[in-house]
Amino acid sequence: MDKGLLLVLSGPSGTGKGTVCEELCQQQNSLCNSISVTSRFPRKGEKDGVHYHFLPEAQFEKLIEEGALLEWARVYGNYYGTPLKQVEEKRAQGLDVILEIDTQGAKQIRERVKEAILIFLLPPSLKELWNRIKGRGTEKPEVMKERFLAAHGELKEISNYNYVVFNNNVSEAVDKIKAIITAEKCRVARNKEKLAKLSEERWLI
Amino acid sequence: MDKGLLLVLSGPSGTGKGTVCEELCQQQNSLCNSISVTSRFPRKGEKDGVHYHFLPEAQFEKLIEEGALLEWARVYGNYYGTPLKQVEEKRAQGLDVILEIDTQGAKQIRERVKEAILIFLLPPSLKELWNRIKGRGTEKPEVMKERFLAAHGELKEISNYNYVVFNNNVSEAVDKIKAIITAEKCRVARNKEKLAKLSEERWLI
Repeated sequence: MDKGLLLVLSGPSGTGKGTVCEELCQQQNSLCNSISVTSRFPRKGEKDGVHYHFLPEAQFEKLIEEGALLEWARVYGNYYGTPLKQVEEKRAQGLDVILEIDTQGAKQIRERVKEAILIFLLPPSLKELWNRIKGRGTEKPEVMKERFLAAHGELKEISNYNYVVFNNNVSEAVDKIKAIITAEKCRVARNKEKLAKLSEERWLI
Repeated sequence: MDKGLLLVLSGPSGTGKGTVCEELCQQQNSLCNSISVTSRFPRKGEKDGVHYHFLPEAQFEKLIEEGALLEWARVYGNYYGTPLKQVEEKRAQGLDVILEIDTQGAKQIRERVKEAILIFLLPPSLKELWNRIKGRGTEKPEVMKERFLAAHGELKEISNYNYVVFNNNVSEAVDKIKAIITAEKCRVARNKEKLAKLSEERWLI
């Protein structure tokens, strides 16, 4: 069985990463996400073990020390990270794993997992992004502005990514990421084994 | 407008390149093929200006001298080539161009057009390929064997390609190539202009 792909989905907050990821995993049986660990408090409606594994800061730092995280970052004073074991187990079963993480985390993944596929999700315009951040209504004005400025700063990081997807609407963005998955599975570098097998068929020669 | 992609489709004869290409161009309005020039005689059913531009050997050699060909090759004693101007004009109009060419030609394209996307079409097995070559019934046994051995030799060239598509059935192969086109249009390197534009939106900052 082929090892599953490792996909990374980044993008400024307010771009719709969460919705796109959820829709993708619903449509593609072979795709699953990995539940991140975080030290921040749950937002309204967020459930432990579903949206995140919520952990006290000290326990999070223990995971870092043990090397149990594929990547981790401290954002707005909170830790976020991805458990290595969970991801590797799923990929070994042939499942593709998609991680919804920020640019700091993506950089670490790129260094540790050379074959990872990095996708940056963008709003159609920055004005639209600002409207979406405002529309969420869960943050104070200073926090919203901080998020917006961070988003603008993150644009510089796109050159580290393989793909950019403009999220004009969810279903279009989902279709594009599905196409990226299909295409990546056709990459010559990911088919070495199959090609070697074909080449060994020497029955007529 | 974005410049169209340049796709190259190679694969041993008998793999179904022609059928896949035709089906692709029918399904994708933005995709067209380029009619090759050749010095060989038309096969039964082939029309000048549709399947190939058929030219006498001397005229073909003149095109080579003039640098009017994007690539050319001599296969089984006949010349085959792709007119440069035709391809560039279509790409400038935003059309994606797919070229059905052999490994020699693909190598030349790779050197001249860095952004070209090289796809290798393969049969599900070599046994299946042999059946298809036999089934065509237009060649003598020696020619069929020669084609088969050439096919096996071409497998070595796959490492120069970006993608490999197994042609188990035409519609599956077509869908995969369509996904490759969609994915390639999302590549960060192909979206520099759009990204620069987005980054310049400084209305709030």
